[in-house]
Amino acid sequence: MNRVKIQTNPSTSGIDMALCFKVTVFEQEHFQGKCQELTSECRNIQERGFDNIRSIRVESGAWVGYEHHDFQGQQFVLEKGEYPHWDAYSGSLGYHVERMMSLRPICSADHQSSRMVIYEKENFLGRNVELCDDYPSLQAMGWCDKQVGSMHVQCGAFVCYEYPGYRGQQYVMECDRHSGDYQHWRDWGSHCQTPQIQSIRRIQQ
Amino acid sequence: MNRVKIQTNPSTSGIDMALCFKVTVFEQEHFQGKCQELTSECRNIQERGFDNIRSIRVESGAWVGYEHHDFQGQQFVLEKGEYPHWDAYSGSLGYHVERMMSLRPICSADHQSSRMVIYEKENFLGRNVELCDDYPSLQAMGWCDKQVGSMHVQCGAFVCYEYPGYRGQQYVMECDRHSGDYQHWRDWGSHCQTPQIQSIRRIQQ
Repeated sequence: MNRVKIQTNPSTSGIDMALCFKVTVFEQEHFQGKCQELTSECRNIQERGFDNIRSIRVESGAWVGYEHHDFQGQQFVLEKGEYPHWDAYSGSLGYHVERMMSLRPICSADHQSSRMVIYEKENFLGRNVELCDDYPSLQAMGWCDKQVGSMHVQCGAFVCYEYPGYRGQQYVMECDRHSGDYQHWRDWGSHCQTPQIQSIRRIQQ
Repeated sequence: MNRVKIQTNPSTSGIDMALCFKVTVFEQEHFQGKCQELTSECRNIQERGFDNIRSIRVESGAWVGYEHHDFQGQQFVLEKGEYPHWDAYSGSLGYHVERMMSLRPICSADHQSSRMVIYEKENFLGRNVELCDDYPSLQAMGWCDKQVGSMHVQCGAFVCYEYPGYRGQQYVMECDRHSGDYQHWRDWGSHCQTPQIQSIRRIQQ
Protein backbone atom coordinates (compact mmCIF):
# COMPACT_ATOMS: atom_id res chain seq x y z
CA MET A 1 0.00 0.00 0.00
CA ASN A 2 1.74 3.13 -1.19
CA ARG A 3 0.23 6.26 0.27
CA VAL A 4 1.09 9.24 -1.88
CA LYS A 5 0.59 12.88 -1.10
CA ILE A 6 -1.66 14.89 -3.35
CA GLN A 7 0.31 17.62 -5.07
CA THR A 8 -1.26 20.92 -5.93
CA ASN A 9 -0.29 22.49 -9.23
CA PRO A 10 2.36 25.21 -9.11
CA SER A 11 0.88 28.70 -9.27
CA THR A 12 0.67 30.16 -12.72
CA SER A 13 2.62 33.05 -14.14
CA GLY A 14 2.21 34.95 -17.38
CA ILE A 15 5.05 33.18 -19.09
CA ASP A 16 3.64 29.67 -18.89
CA MET A 17 0.01 30.60 -19.32
CA ALA A 18 -0.44 28.76 -22.60
CA LEU A 19 0.78 25.62 -20.89
CA CYS A 20 -1.41 26.07 -17.86
CA PHE A 21 -4.80 26.53 -19.48
CA LYS A 22 -6.20 23.93 -21.80
CA VAL A 23 -9.77 22.87 -22.47
CA THR A 24 -11.33 20.79 -25.23
CA VAL A 25 -14.86 21.76 -26.21
CA PHE A 26 -17.30 19.56 -28.13
CA GLU A 27 -20.41 20.44 -30.08
CA GLN A 28 -22.21 17.26 -28.95
CA GLU A 29 -22.72 15.59 -25.59
CA HIS A 30 -20.35 12.86 -24.36
CA PHE A 31 -17.34 14.33 -26.19
CA GLN A 32 -18.77 13.75 -29.64
CA GLY A 33 -18.94 15.82 -32.80
CA LYS A 34 -16.84 18.81 -33.76
CA CYS A 35 -14.18 19.62 -31.18
CA GLN A 36 -11.50 22.21 -30.57
CA GLU A 37 -8.73 22.75 -28.07
CA LEU A 38 -8.56 26.17 -26.42
CA THR A 39 -5.67 27.62 -24.45
CA SER A 40 -6.98 31.16 -24.08
CA GLU A 41 -10.26 33.03 -23.98
CA CYS A 42 -12.95 32.61 -26.62
CA ARG A 43 -15.43 35.50 -26.87
CA ASN A 44 -17.80 33.78 -29.26
CA ILE A 45 -17.72 30.10 -30.06
CA GLN A 46 -19.76 30.73 -33.22
CA GLU A 47 -16.77 32.52 -34.69
CA ARG A 48 -14.94 29.21 -34.39
CA GLY A 49 -17.69 27.40 -36.28
CA PHE A 50 -19.60 25.99 -33.30
CA ASP A 51 -23.36 26.26 -32.81
CA ASN A 52 -23.10 25.48 -29.11
CA ILE A 53 -20.93 23.61 -26.61
CA ARG A 54 -22.48 20.48 -25.11
CA SER A 55 -19.55 18.74 -23.45
CA ILE A 56 -16.18 19.84 -22.12
CA ARG A 57 -12.95 18.26 -21.01
CA VAL A 58 -10.86 20.61 -18.85
CA GLU A 59 -7.25 19.51 -19.21
CA SER A 60 -5.67 22.20 -17.04
CA GLY A 61 -6.47 25.42 -15.27
CA ALA A 62 -9.78 26.75 -14.06
CA TRP A 63 -12.22 28.25 -16.56
CA VAL A 64 -15.53 30.06 -16.56
CA GLY A 65 -18.14 29.55 -19.26
CA TYR A 66 -20.93 32.00 -20.08
CA GLU A 67 -24.45 31.67 -21.44
CA HIS A 68 -23.91 34.43 -24.05
CA HIS A 69 -20.97 35.64 -26.10
CA ASP A 70 -18.64 38.33 -24.76
CA PHE A 71 -18.77 36.79 -21.28
CA GLN A 72 -22.37 37.75 -20.55
CA GLY A 73 -25.21 35.90 -18.85
CA GLN A 74 -25.07 32.93 -16.52
CA GLN A 75 -21.66 31.74 -15.39
CA PHE A 76 -20.43 28.15 -15.07
CA VAL A 77 -17.19 27.39 -13.24
CA LEU A 78 -15.15 24.63 -14.89
CA GLU A 79 -12.32 22.90 -13.07
CA LYS A 80 -10.12 20.06 -14.24
CA GLY A 81 -12.12 16.99 -15.22
CA GLU A 82 -14.85 15.82 -17.55
CA TYR A 83 -18.28 17.36 -18.11
CA PRO A 84 -20.13 15.03 -20.49
CA HIS A 85 -23.32 17.09 -20.76
CA TRP A 86 -24.88 20.40 -19.88
CA ASP A 87 -26.26 19.22 -16.53
CA ALA A 88 -22.76 18.34 -15.41
CA TYR A 89 -21.51 21.90 -15.38
CA SER A 90 -24.59 24.06 -15.16
CA GLY A 91 -25.75 23.06 -11.73
CA SER A 92 -29.31 23.68 -10.73
CA LEU A 93 -30.99 26.70 -12.20
CA GLY A 94 -34.44 28.16 -12.14
CA TYR A 95 -34.70 28.01 -15.90
CA HIS A 96 -33.06 25.47 -18.08
CA VAL A 97 -30.80 27.21 -20.56
CA GLU A 98 -28.48 24.92 -22.46
CA ARG A 99 -26.12 27.45 -23.94
CA MET A 100 -22.46 28.18 -23.48
CA MET A 101 -21.32 30.77 -26.00
CA SER A 102 -18.05 32.07 -24.54
CA LEU A 103 -15.43 30.98 -22.04
CA ARG A 104 -12.17 32.19 -20.54
CA PRO A 105 -9.47 31.05 -18.10
CA ILE A 106 -9.65 32.20 -14.48
CA CYS A 107 -6.04 33.35 -14.28
CA SER A 108 -6.07 34.43 -10.64
CA ALA A 109 -7.45 31.17 -9.21
CA ASP A 110 -5.18 30.07 -6.39
CA HIS A 111 -6.66 27.50 -4.04
CA GLN A 112 -4.01 27.86 -1.34
CA SER A 113 -3.94 31.61 -0.83
CA SER A 114 -7.41 32.86 -1.72
CA ARG A 115 -8.77 35.58 0.56
CA MET A 116 -11.80 37.84 0.37
CA VAL A 117 -13.98 40.03 2.60
CA ILE A 118 -17.78 39.98 2.43
CA TYR A 119 -19.84 42.91 3.69
CA GLU A 120 -23.39 43.09 4.96
CA LYS A 121 -24.25 46.14 2.86
CA GLU A 122 -23.31 47.56 -0.52
CA ASN A 123 -20.28 49.89 -0.88
CA PHE A 124 -18.28 47.82 1.65
CA LEU A 125 -20.37 48.88 4.62
CA GLY A 126 -21.79 47.11 7.66
CA ARG A 127 -20.70 43.91 9.32
CA ASN A 128 -17.90 42.14 7.46
CA VAL A 129 -15.98 38.88 7.55
CA GLU A 130 -12.74 37.71 5.98
CA LEU A 131 -12.95 34.35 4.19
CA CYS A 132 -10.03 32.15 3.18
CA ASP A 133 -11.63 28.69 3.06
CA ASP A 134 -14.69 27.06 1.52
CA TYR A 135 -18.11 27.73 3.08
CA PRO A 136 -20.92 25.40 1.96
CA SER A 137 -23.24 27.30 4.30
CA LEU A 138 -22.38 30.89 5.22
CA GLN A 139 -25.16 30.83 7.80
CA ALA A 140 -23.75 27.75 9.51
CA MET A 141 -20.43 29.59 9.71
CA GLY A 142 -22.03 32.50 11.54
CA TRP A 143 -23.10 34.89 8.77
CA CYS A 144 -26.46 36.20 9.89
CA ASP A 145 -28.17 36.72 6.58
CA LYS A 146 -28.79 34.87 3.32
CA GLN A 147 -27.62 37.95 1.44
CA VAL A 148 -24.26 39.64 0.90
CA GLY A 149 -24.12 43.38 0.18
CA SER A 150 -20.65 43.75 -1.35
CA MET A 151 -17.31 41.93 -1.57
CA HIS A 152 -13.62 42.56 -1.99
CA VAL A 153 -11.33 39.80 -3.28
CA GLN A 154 -7.82 40.30 -1.97
CA CYS A 155 -6.17 37.18 -3.43
CA GLY A 156 -7.23 34.39 -5.73
CA ALA A 157 -10.71 33.75 -7.05
CA PHE A 158 -13.96 32.56 -5.50
CA VAL A 159 -17.29 31.33 -6.75
CA CYS A 160 -20.40 32.41 -4.89
CA TYR A 161 -23.70 30.52 -5.08
CA GLU A 162 -27.31 31.47 -4.54
CA TYR A 163 -28.08 28.45 -2.32
CA PRO A 164 -26.18 26.43 0.30
CA GLY A 165 -24.06 23.49 -0.82
CA TYR A 166 -22.83 25.23 -3.99
CA ARG A 167 -26.21 25.22 -5.71
CA GLY A 168 -28.08 27.70 -7.88
CA GLN A 169 -26.71 30.72 -9.73
CA GLN A 170 -22.91 31.02 -9.79
CA TYR A 171 -20.90 34.24 -9.62
CA VAL A 172 -17.13 34.24 -10.18
CA MET A 173 -15.21 36.84 -8.14
CA GLU A 174 -11.54 37.51 -9.01
CA CYS A 175 -8.82 39.63 -7.45
CA ASP A 176 -7.65 40.78 -10.89
CA ARG A 177 -11.03 42.03 -12.16
CA HIS A 178 -12.47 45.37 -10.97
CA SER A 179 -9.42 45.47 -8.64
CA GLY A 180 -11.22 42.72 -6.74
CA ASP A 181 -14.04 45.15 -5.81
CA TYR A 182 -17.66 44.10 -6.19
CA GLN A 183 -19.48 46.91 -4.48
CA HIS A 184 -23.04 46.07 -5.49
CA TRP A 185 -24.80 42.86 -6.52
CA ARG A 186 -25.19 44.28 -10.03
CA ASP A 187 -21.38 43.93 -10.36
CA TRP A 188 -21.52 40.17 -9.76
CA GLY A 189 -22.58 39.31 -13.28
CA SER A 190 -24.93 40.40 -16.01
CA HIS A 191 -27.44 37.70 -14.98
CA CYS A 192 -27.54 38.58 -11.28
CA GLN A 193 -31.03 39.42 -10.04
CA THR A 194 -30.67 39.47 -6.24
CA PRO A 195 -28.00 39.83 -3.55
CA GLN A 196 -28.72 36.29 -2.32
CA ILE A 197 -25.58 34.26 -1.64
CA GLN A 198 -25.60 31.27 0.71
CA SER A 199 -22.33 29.48 -0.10
CA ILE A 200 -18.86 30.53 -1.25
CA ARG A 201 -15.78 28.54 -2.18
CA ARG A 202 -12.32 29.04 -3.60
CA ILE A 203 -11.71 28.16 -7.23
CA GLN A 204 -9.06 25.57 -7.87
CA GLN A 205 -6.44 25.98 -10.56
CA MET B 1 -16.00 49.04 10.21
CA ASN B 2 -16.26 46.15 12.64
CA ARG B 3 -14.57 43.03 11.34
CA VAL B 4 -15.86 39.97 13.14
CA LYS B 5 -14.51 36.47 13.02
CA ILE B 6 -16.79 33.74 11.75
CA GLN B 7 -17.49 31.20 14.47
CA THR B 8 -18.04 27.58 13.69
CA ASN B 9 -20.70 25.77 15.65
CA PRO B 10 -19.52 23.63 18.55
CA SER B 11 -19.33 19.96 17.71
CA THR B 12 -22.41 17.95 18.54
CA SER B 13 -22.83 15.30 21.16
CA GLY B 14 -25.64 12.84 21.76
CA ILE B 15 -27.05 14.80 24.64
CA ASP B 16 -27.85 17.99 22.74
CA MET B 17 -28.83 16.33 19.49
CA ALA B 18 -32.44 17.54 19.59
CA LEU B 19 -31.14 21.07 19.90
CA CYS B 20 -28.58 20.71 17.15
CA PHE B 21 -30.73 19.36 14.34
CA LYS B 22 -33.74 21.24 13.11
CA VAL B 23 -35.28 21.47 9.67
CA THR B 24 -38.66 22.75 8.48
CA VAL B 25 -40.11 20.96 5.47
CA PHE B 26 -42.88 22.33 3.23
CA GLU B 27 -45.19 20.57 0.84
CA GLN B 28 -45.09 23.46 -1.66
CA GLU B 29 -42.28 25.52 -3.18
CA HIS B 30 -41.16 28.79 -1.62
CA PHE B 31 -42.03 27.68 1.92
CA GLN B 32 -45.75 27.44 1.26
CA GLY B 33 -48.43 24.89 2.14
CA LYS B 34 -48.34 22.27 4.85
CA CYS B 35 -45.17 22.39 6.94
CA GLN B 36 -43.55 20.51 9.77
CA GLU B 37 -40.50 20.91 11.96
CA LEU B 38 -38.21 17.89 12.26
CA THR B 39 -35.46 17.36 14.82
CA SER B 40 -34.67 13.72 14.02
CA GLU B 41 -34.87 11.30 11.14
CA CYS B 42 -38.02 10.76 9.11
CA ARG B 43 -38.21 7.45 7.23
CA ASN B 44 -41.31 8.28 5.23
CA ILE B 45 -42.77 11.74 4.92
CA GLN B 46 -46.08 10.24 3.77
CA GLU B 47 -46.55 8.86 7.28
CA ARG B 48 -46.53 12.47 8.42
CA GLY B 49 -49.25 13.39 5.94
CA PHE B 50 -47.04 14.84 3.20
CA ASP B 51 -47.27 13.92 -0.47
CA ASN B 52 -43.82 15.31 -1.20
CA ILE B 53 -41.35 17.94 0.03
CA ARG B 54 -40.83 20.89 -2.29
CA SER B 55 -38.98 23.41 -0.13
CA ILE B 56 -36.83 23.21 2.97
CA ARG B 57 -35.42 25.53 5.56
CA VAL B 58 -32.47 24.00 7.44
CA GLU B 59 -32.30 25.72 10.82
CA SER B 60 -29.39 23.77 12.25
CA GLY B 61 -27.21 20.76 11.58
CA ALA B 62 -26.46 19.01 8.32
CA TRP B 63 -29.07 16.69 6.81
CA VAL B 64 -29.36 14.30 3.91
CA GLY B 65 -32.58 13.87 1.95
CA TYR B 66 -33.45 10.82 -0.16
CA GLU B 67 -35.51 10.26 -3.27
CA HIS B 68 -37.36 7.28 -1.72
CA HIS B 69 -38.54 6.36 1.76
CA ASP B 70 -36.26 4.41 4.10
CA PHE B 71 -33.24 6.42 2.94
CA GLN B 72 -33.07 4.90 -0.54
CA GLY B 73 -32.36 6.41 -3.94
CA GLN B 74 -30.67 9.66 -4.80
CA GLN B 75 -29.14 11.67 -1.98
CA PHE B 76 -29.28 15.42 -1.44
CA VAL B 77 -27.02 17.07 1.14
CA LEU B 78 -28.74 19.89 3.04
CA GLU B 79 -26.76 22.41 5.06
CA LYS B 80 -28.00 25.41 7.00
CA GLY B 81 -29.94 27.83 4.81
CA GLU B 82 -32.95 28.06 2.56
CA TYR B 83 -33.87 25.81 -0.36
CA PRO B 84 -36.97 27.34 -1.96
CA HIS B 85 -37.48 24.68 -4.63
CA TRP B 86 -36.30 21.32 -5.81
CA ASP B 87 -33.59 22.71 -8.11
CA ALA B 88 -31.97 24.42 -5.13
CA TYR B 89 -31.01 21.21 -3.38
CA SER B 90 -30.98 18.55 -6.07
CA GLY B 91 -28.12 19.85 -8.15
CA SER B 92 -27.75 18.69 -11.69
CA LEU B 93 -28.89 15.21 -12.46
CA GLY B 94 -29.22 13.11 -15.53
CA TYR B 95 -32.93 12.65 -14.97
CA HIS B 96 -35.21 15.10 -13.31
CA VAL B 97 -36.79 13.47 -10.29
CA GLU B 98 -38.61 15.85 -8.00
CA ARG B 99 -39.07 13.63 -4.99
CA MET B 100 -37.75 13.70 -1.45
CA MET B 101 -39.45 11.02 0.64
CA SER B 102 -37.14 10.63 3.64
CA LEU B 103 -34.43 12.56 5.42
CA ARG B 104 -32.11 12.28 8.38
CA PRO B 105 -29.44 14.27 10.24
CA ILE B 106 -25.77 13.70 9.41
CA CYS B 107 -24.63 13.31 13.01
CA SER B 108 -20.94 12.83 12.31
CA ALA B 109 -20.49 15.96 10.14
CA ASP B 110 -17.53 17.89 11.50
CA HIS B 111 -16.07 20.46 9.13
CA GLN B 112 -12.88 21.05 11.12
CA SER B 113 -11.64 17.51 11.64
CA SER B 114 -12.95 15.49 8.71
CA ARG B 115 -10.50 12.94 7.32
CA MET B 116 -10.82 10.13 4.80
CA VAL B 117 -8.71 7.93 2.52
CA ILE B 118 -9.63 7.20 -1.09
CA TYR B 119 -8.27 4.17 -2.91
CA GLU B 120 -7.73 3.51 -6.56
CA LYS B 121 -9.31 0.04 -6.42
CA GLU B 122 -12.09 -1.68 -4.52
CA ASN B 123 -11.38 -3.39 -1.17
CA PHE B 124 -8.95 -0.61 -0.15
CA LEU B 125 -6.31 -1.57 -2.68
CA GLY B 126 -4.03 0.34 -5.01
CA ARG B 127 -2.84 3.91 -4.87
CA ASN B 128 -4.41 5.89 -2.04
CA VAL B 129 -4.57 9.43 -0.72
CA GLU B 130 -5.66 10.95 2.58
CA LEU B 131 -8.08 13.88 2.25
CA CYS B 132 -8.89 16.43 4.94
CA ASP B 133 -10.01 19.43 2.90
CA ASP B 134 -12.42 20.19 0.06
CA TYR B 135 -11.48 19.11 -3.48
CA PRO B 136 -13.56 20.65 -6.28
CA SER B 137 -11.40 18.71 -8.75
CA LEU B 138 -9.65 15.56 -7.58
CA GLN B 139 -7.74 15.47 -10.85
CA ALA B 140 -6.41 19.00 -10.37
CA MET B 141 -5.18 17.90 -6.95
CA GLY B 142 -3.19 15.04 -8.46
CA TRP B 143 -5.61 12.09 -8.46
CA CYS B 144 -4.93 10.35 -11.75
CA ASP B 145 -8.36 8.99 -12.54
CA LYS B 146 -11.97 10.14 -12.67
CA GLN B 147 -12.95 7.09 -10.63
CA VAL B 148 -12.47 6.03 -7.01
CA GLY B 149 -12.39 2.34 -6.12
CA SER B 150 -13.11 2.42 -2.38
CA MET B 151 -13.00 4.80 0.60
CA HIS B 152 -12.54 4.83 4.34
CA VAL B 153 -13.87 7.75 6.39
CA GLN B 154 -11.80 8.15 9.54
CA CYS B 155 -13.49 11.27 10.98
CA GLY B 156 -16.46 13.41 10.05
CA ALA B 157 -18.55 13.15 6.92
CA PHE B 158 -17.94 13.91 3.25
CA VAL B 159 -20.04 14.26 0.15
CA CYS B 160 -18.67 12.89 -3.11
CA TYR B 161 -19.88 14.05 -6.52
CA GLU B 162 -19.89 12.50 -9.96
CA TYR B 163 -18.50 15.63 -11.68
CA PRO B 164 -16.00 18.36 -10.79
CA GLY B 165 -17.22 21.47 -8.95
CA TYR B 166 -19.67 19.51 -6.78
CA ARG B 167 -22.01 18.59 -9.62
CA GLY B 168 -23.97 15.50 -10.52
CA GLN B 169 -24.89 12.56 -8.30
CA GLN B 170 -24.14 12.98 -4.59
CA TYR B 171 -22.94 10.28 -2.20
CA VAL B 172 -22.75 10.93 1.54
CA MET B 173 -19.89 9.11 3.33
CA GLU B 174 -19.87 9.04 7.14
CA CYS B 175 -17.42 7.76 9.73
CA ASP B 176 -20.27 6.35 11.85
CA ARG B 177 -21.90 4.25 9.08
CA HIS B 178 -20.40 0.94 7.93
CA SER B 179 -17.54 1.81 10.37
CA GLY B 180 -16.61 4.40 7.76
CA ASP B 181 -15.79 1.66 5.22
CA TYR B 182 -17.09 1.88 1.67
CA GLN B 183 -15.26 -0.92 -0.04
CA HIS B 184 -17.11 -0.95 -3.35
CA TRP B 185 -19.07 1.64 -5.30
CA ARG B 186 -22.24 -0.35 -4.64
CA ASP B 187 -21.88 0.69 -0.97
CA TRP B 188 -22.04 4.40 -1.83
CA GLY B 189 -25.82 4.48 -2.17
CA SER B 190 -28.70 2.54 -3.63
CA HIS B 191 -28.72 4.84 -6.69
CA CYS B 192 -25.02 4.53 -7.51
CA GLN B 193 -24.37 3.23 -11.02
CA THR B 194 -20.64 3.83 -11.53
CA PRO B 195 -17.45 4.43 -9.55
CA GLN B 196 -17.09 7.90 -11.08
CA ILE B 197 -16.22 10.60 -8.54
CA GLN B 198 -14.54 13.84 -9.57
CA SER B 199 -15.02 16.10 -6.52
CA ILE B 200 -15.23 15.56 -2.76
CA ARG B 201 -15.90 17.96 0.10
CA ARG B 202 -16.46 17.94 3.83
CA ILE B 203 -20.02 18.34 5.11
CA GLN B 204 -20.58 21.27 7.39
CA GLN B 205 -22.59 20.97 10.60
